Amino acid sequence: MPTTEQIMQTLATVQDPELGRDLVTLNMIRDLKIQDGSVSFTLYLTIPGCPLKDHMAKEAKEALMKIPGVQAVDITFGNMTAEERKAVLNNGKRQFPKLEVMNKIEHVYSVMSGKGGVGKSSVTAMLAAELSRQGQKVGILDADITGASIPKLFGLPAGGLRGGDMGILPAITPTGIRIVSSNLMLKEEDLAIAWRGPLIAGMIQKFWNDVLWGRLDTLLVDLPPGTSDATITVMQNLPINGVMLVTSPQELSGLVVRKAANLMTRLDIPILGVIENMSYFRCPGCNQEYPIFGPSHSDKLAADFNTSLVTCLPIDPNIAELCDQGRVEQVNLPEMTIVAQHLLGITASA
Amino acid sequence: MPTTEQIMQTLATVQDPELGRDLVTLNMIRDLKIQDGSVSFTLYLTIPGCPLKDHMAKEAKEALMKIPGVQAVDITFGNMTAEERKAVLNNGKRQFPKLEVMNKIEHVYSVMSGKGGVGKSSVTAMLAAELSRQGQKVGILDADITGASIPKLFGLPAGGLRGGDMGILPAITPTGIRIVSSNLMLKEEDLAIAWRGPLIAGMIQKFWNDVLWGRLDTLLVDLPPGTSDATITVMQNLPINGVMLVTSPQELSGLVVRKAANLMTRLDIPILGVIENMSYFRCPGCNQEYPIFGPSHSDKLAADFNTSLVTCLPIDPNIAELCDQGRVEQVNLPEMTIVAQHLLGITASA
Repeated sequence: MPTTEQIMQTLATVQDPELGRDLVTLNMIRDLKIQDGSVSFTLYLTIPGCPLKDHMAKEAKEALMKIPGVQAVDITFGNMTAEERKAVLNNGKRQFPKLEVMNKIEHVYSVMSGKGGVGKSSVTAMLAAELSRQGQKVGILDADITGASIPKLFGLPAGGLRGGDMGILPAITPTGIRIVSSNLMLKEEDLAIAWRGPLIAGMIQKFWNDVLWGRLDTLLVDLPPGTSDATITVMQNLPINGVMLVTSPQELSGLVVRKAANLMTRLDIPILGVIENMSYFRCPGCNQEYPIFGPSHSDKLAADFNTSLVTCLPIDPNIAELCDQGRVEQVNLPEMTIVAQHLLGITASA
Repeated sequence: MPTTEQIMQTLATVQDPELGRDLVTLNMIRDLKIQDGSVSFTLYLTIPGCPLKDHMAKEAKEALMKIPGVQAVDITFGNMTAEERKAVLNNGKRQFPKLEVMNKIEHVYSVMSGKGGVGKSSVTAMLAAELSRQGQKVGILDADITGASIPKLFGLPAGGLRGGDMGILPAITPTGIRIVSSNLMLKEEDLAIAWRGPLIAGMIQKFWNDVLWGRLDTLLVDLPPGTSDATITVMQNLPINGVMLVTSPQELSGLVVRKAANLMTRLDIPILGVIENMSYFRCPGCNQEYPIFGPSHSDKLAADFNTSLVTCLPIDPNIAELCDQGRVEQVNLPEMTIVAQHLLGITASA
């Protein structure tokens, strides 16, 4: 006859695909009964009617049927209470790293999109510059390990990270923003970092645990596209106070951004606002504005996730040029002041 | 005294960060000598003067010094011959899957960028449509598991994949292109797939091994941004004949695209050409062309990797609209004919 241990060990190999954690860790398995070869239990869902419930039940059943002696598996569904759900979702998050006595970071915000190339990194960099102009001490943790572009925006050369007795010392930009990025660890900035997930996750944790950030008002975490290792690691291991979503007008971008937003909702991480980038192009010839990536769908996106569309940023070749030249701190976009004040308002009311 | 086995096992935990495989698998350890507590060996580099050699030597030394009894580690460098290098790099690739008798795929090309949002997916889709118009049987394997956008471009609904006795059946577009994508497996297209690397890798292998592709002239593999699990898995497990690199004019994109290109060079995978997307905007008001993302650097990129800049694609709101509406097969861009003919030319001469 199969043992409870065998059953639980097997169920620990089945994942909730959206949360990226297994059914046992998520405390989803209840009322487990084993009678002769028959196994039955209730699968407690983190949200009622979870669209992945049949998928998880099927995977669980298939895995259990492979255990010698298991002849039948009967799964019923239950729903967690709001408290249970919160406890479970925070479970993976509360292993806050031992911050050095010298590290004191007031607010940690992540800039994310799900979609690549909508301008997350330049928005992160411009926002950091604006917060810094407004008197804040700001840092950027570049969690895009394989596609790091933050250092280039600030004109920081490869190899700019130094190790001290106290930990890794961030690179510092002309206006005093502290930056940690994989590209600062390379000898040449265009080397590929072809790392599988565990190494990516390890480096992000290092950037949080082993860096002498010092005292910061705000740390911005620039995430890569996608909802795989980097995103999961940041959300589970860093005390993220909320995320700013960056999108572009195209519906195709919106679709992928929605995936990221849905994940935040499930992880109970506040979405603080939506920034639409590349909204229009003001033609220097005829001075008309052209929505070159089509009409905006971002107000609907924001509304669907109970947040606001904070601002729409133009496509501006001058900004692109400053970014390419590593002079992002010289960009002075009135729209960015709006975003900074939006964040500072949230900070003040928190 | 430490044993040879202990030493080799320890060195098997040290990675070549660019190749994503360990020093032992890569056959880099030669002339190992252990005398009392002193360990010495030659580290054979896959390319002379590999910029990561000191990094690897340092990691290897640190790992070895942790073995009880090891008191000193002496590493010298050597260089592999061209043959050795080729054998080693192909080592991880030659585990070609058992293709079903019914699967016969003539050419497998990957569309990659490293950078997100430069239009990889729309280029892949337009290229597939153009190859199909020219009489080819075409398939698309969407390897962007967490940010899948291929199905939306073709107007294919979520849930469109069916399983048959013979394997997973691809979805088929109006013009007959066969498509497999994670989004076709979801009940709702905006659900997040928050999977860590091993699950991503597993799904990509499934898309190759378990899909009844049938007879195809060309299979295009759409890669996600970055050089992590998806890219590594595709390059190591699929018989990729070459890659098309997609970039955009901005230098910042170019930097990240170079990382991907460097990785291809190290893996000995041919770069077949560069496609620059979003090159300019033709203003419908004044009919001028504006390089809104700045001047192009793509010819230099292509030259640096001994390949050619095949074409430059405009930003065209009409194309964006067709893509958003799932009608990418109706896009008929003369520049795409050039790309298709470039690929067919390579195919014919191969």
